[in-house]
Amino acid sequence: MTARTLAQPFPIVTLDTDAMDAAQTMTRLRWPGLIVSGDDGRPYTILPGSEVLRFLIPTYVQDDPGLARALDERASDELFRKLVRSTVRDLLPQPPDYDDLPVVDADATSLEVAAVMARMRSPLVAVVDGDKVVGAITVNRLLAHLLPAAPAS
Amino acid sequence: MTARTLAQPFPIVTLDTDAMDAAQTMTRLRWPGLIVSGDDGRPYTILPGSEVLRFLIPTYVQDDPGLARALDERASDELFRKLVRSTVRDLLPQPPDYDDLPVVDADATSLEVAAVMARMRSPLVAVVDGDKVVGAITVNRLLAHLLPAAPAS
Repeated sequence: MTARTLAQPFPIVTLDTDAMDAAQTMTRLRWPGLIVSGDDGRPYTILPGSEVLRFLIPTYVQDDPGLARALDERASDELFRKLVRSTVRDLLPQPPDYDDLPVVDADATSLEVAAVMARMRSPLVAVVDGDKVVGAITVNRLLAHLLPAAPAS
Repeated sequence: MTARTLAQPFPIVTLDTDAMDAAQTMTRLRWPGLIVSGDDGRPYTILPGSEVLRFLIPTYVQDDPGLARALDERASDELFRKLVRSTVRDLLPQPPDYDDLPVVDADATSLEVAAVMARMRSPLVAVVDGDKVVGAITVNRLLAHLLPAAPAS
């Protein structure tokens, strides 16, 4: 089975997508992350859910999570308002390394997809046909395809 | 809202659980990983799906995923048979760092949970009450709780 067959459709998120929209999309669809496309339509990077939290939670609270208890509801609301005023570009920690993106060709085999996911420790790969993203494959979907349905005895 | 309220029940996986059972459980429930308990019942580590693939796919194929195309179906079946002969202990890359596990107390606030997830870049935290694991929280569940249901205007 090829990556094209395994790929599922996914919502297109670009660097200019509203950060709140992106976070809500990821949450609603229960994806482990989002594929971010660049202006040329090619995959730019993967945005995992924990990066959204890294953007929202001040560094001094990440370093000492107990401090979060000192934040009242108004302070908490203010943190999340940051998302409304931001784009996906702001959520990304740094420019991606183009040589190290979890991307596979549409005709890649399922084992090839597994090898890419394993190497990058990524829960998600983008599937491209030429320059165009045609879908995404999660680690759970891949494992469901590769593993037998019931334990072998 | 506290971690206890946000926590969802999760299947108990120990170091001695059959690796195939563990991988099938993760896949069936679509969790981003599994919480592994030690012999004392306390959380031992988190096993993400990509680690299962790292265990299965030979290093030389991870380094050059194109080589996966050279593996025929029999070779592929043989890779997955490794899971039947293994336990969760074999899947783990190395002994965990106990000071750096994504674990929160049952009375932690949702912002505290967010801070721990952000710091550890983890898609999953274990919730403990004393020494006992009472459930787990995924990044998507936390974001669904923290984010407003529709974009603010």
